Amino acid sequence: MSLRLGALKRAEEKISSDVLILGGGPAAFGAALYSARYRLNAVVVAESIGGQLNNAGEIENYLGFERIQASELVGRFKKHVESYGVKVLQDRVIEVKREGEGFIATTRRGTKIDAKAVIVAIGLKRRVLGVPGEREFVGRGVSYCSICDAAFFKDAEAVAVVGGGDSAMEGASLLSNFAKKVYLIHRRGEFRAQPILVEEVKSKGNVEIVLDTVVTEIMGTKSVEGIKVRNLKTGEERELRVSGVFIEIGFEPDTQFIKSLGLETDDYGFIKVHGYMETNVKGMFAAGDITDLWRGFRQVVTSVAQGAVAAHGAYRYIEGMKLKKTPGSTGQS
Amino acid sequence: MSLRLGALKRAEEKISSDVLILGGGPAAFGAALYSARYRLNAVVVAESIGGQLNNAGEIENYLGFERIQASELVGRFKKHVESYGVKVLQDRVIEVKREGEGFIATTRRGTKIDAKAVIVAIGLKRRVLGVPGEREFVGRGVSYCSICDAAFFKDAEAVAVVGGGDSAMEGASLLSNFAKKVYLIHRRGEFRAQPILVEEVKSKGNVEIVLDTVVTEIMGTKSVEGIKVRNLKTGEERELRVSGVFIEIGFEPDTQFIKSLGLETDDYGFIKVHGYMETNVKGMFAAGDITDLWRGFRQVVTSVAQGAVAAHGAYRYIEGMKLKKTPGSTGQS
Repeated sequence: MSLRLGALKRAEEKISSDVLILGGGPAAFGAALYSARYRLNAVVVAESIGGQLNNAGEIENYLGFERIQASELVGRFKKHVESYGVKVLQDRVIEVKREGEGFIATTRRGTKIDAKAVIVAIGLKRRVLGVPGEREFVGRGVSYCSICDAAFFKDAEAVAVVGGGDSAMEGASLLSNFAKKVYLIHRRGEFRAQPILVEEVKSKGNVEIVLDTVVTEIMGTKSVEGIKVRNLKTGEERELRVSGVFIEIGFEPDTQFIKSLGLETDDYGFIKVHGYMETNVKGMFAAGDITDLWRGFRQVVTSVAQGAVAAHGAYRYIEGMKLKKTPGSTGQS
Repeated sequence: MSLRLGALKRAEEKISSDVLILGGGPAAFGAALYSARYRLNAVVVAESIGGQLNNAGEIENYLGFERIQASELVGRFKKHVESYGVKVLQDRVIEVKREGEGFIATTRRGTKIDAKAVIVAIGLKRRVLGVPGEREFVGRGVSYCSICDAAFFKDAEAVAVVGGGDSAMEGASLLSNFAKKVYLIHRRGEFRAQPILVEEVKSKGNVEIVLDTVVTEIMGTKSVEGIKVRNLKTGEERELRVSGVFIEIGFEPDTQFIKSLGLETDDYGFIKVHGYMETNVKGMFAAGDITDLWRGFRQVVTSVAQGAVAAHGAYRYIEGMKLKKTPGSTGQS
């Protein structure tokens, strides 16, 4: 599955489809399942199968599964979609252009895919702090995924988690089981995470909550040795000795590769959708975390649902295209 | 569970809650799960646990379950929600009124429930033909649920299915395995069902498709013996000998009991929602088939998602109410 072709350039390949689905997370799976059930020829292009679910541990809020490992849920989603014979390419679409009434997409490996409709379900890009030391120490103390890397900090004297949302809380709770001490650093005076998660963090004896505070520098020689923080209310600066910094400050949309189509986004860069997950670009649909629908409430079930609706929208759109063809045509295209 | 209190009137009971959830289908379950995860005190009032899922056979499009009996899926939803200790009353809310900043609901059995927020997830009411004979023969040849009643027509000479949507196709396909002949009667020239389902019906050797045609009467003595139909294009009338009539013409919203609150609906009576499934009535949210969001695309996953979002909306609303309380208050209400 994870062919590493690197710089090797293959002969240019061309694929024809009804619906091109960009992304590999719950929204893309929802779109693929429903496209297939509508008998559309769907192609999924995804860099990673599972999307952000790959950064999750246990899932307890996908109705029907009281508790399931995220990786197992991804496996079930994949199997479900594959049972309909949907084609999945492990690649990344770097450009989408108009071609006639449809679209033509180019992938990083040089494959060209034409499609009558496109569903954008690529999710969000991780946000970074942008402070000195952050980039240098990635993988050497700096992590963007507590759930992936917590176990490396077993018996560490102290680590820091930065953020105020669900992932930051989950990260702090988890890390408190490994490191002896966890600093939870948040730039605001209150957390925006679910109360149930905040309560859990507060119940841990070894988590110190540091509010109204930002990280200004990550320090170290070979790996992280400490951080500089500043209290935004008092202006006070201090250093904390930590060997790990978990940056859990969220995600942002990245729609640059389709901007040339005139795609409309909101002030935060999320794709504006209406109706059956339609964008302002005819034939282009969007689903999941990248849309402005229910922005900030990023759940597996909401993404799957939006994907299903986008497929329904694409199906209606393609049926409409057929009806518009000149009378007397065979309906083939 | 299915206590039959009938006309017995219990002493008036009063229940206090944060969120009152009306309905027992996927949307209500989604709302209950997320309300509980937000640590809200949620009460669910439902006439039937499972909602329209109780009329379904196998489910193949709830991502994660390739194929599951609807009844098993309902069982899993119920167990999942119960694991959070959510209270479920088998009853029906007949009125909801404002009380202070919140609401007070009255059930058919006389229970009063007050709530800070209400989530309306009651689904839709079955539509009827309204022709002579229909009401008289319900349960004696007239059915509104092919999946429930098909097996009663094993080896029947002929039955009719009326409708052009997914349920009508599924009904006709299923009945073709029991009855010797199935008439599929639709008032329009084309089906609005998913093509995959239409193809399936067409592949059956014993289904006769009768388009542009309406049923004008259901005839019989003790039970159904035939129907009168009229072709809308030619005006031609004829009789078909059938022992069963399966009416699968869809559903409509029934929001009469909350109309006094000034709830806004669209031209078809569906509740208008915006943002996080908010209605125009402050503190009242809606989810599932009864809303105007994705109207007509009634799927398990879209209902669960809308329910989850409505709970998120209710949580935000209740948090907002707390912040508005006079400074110095303990936050208790």
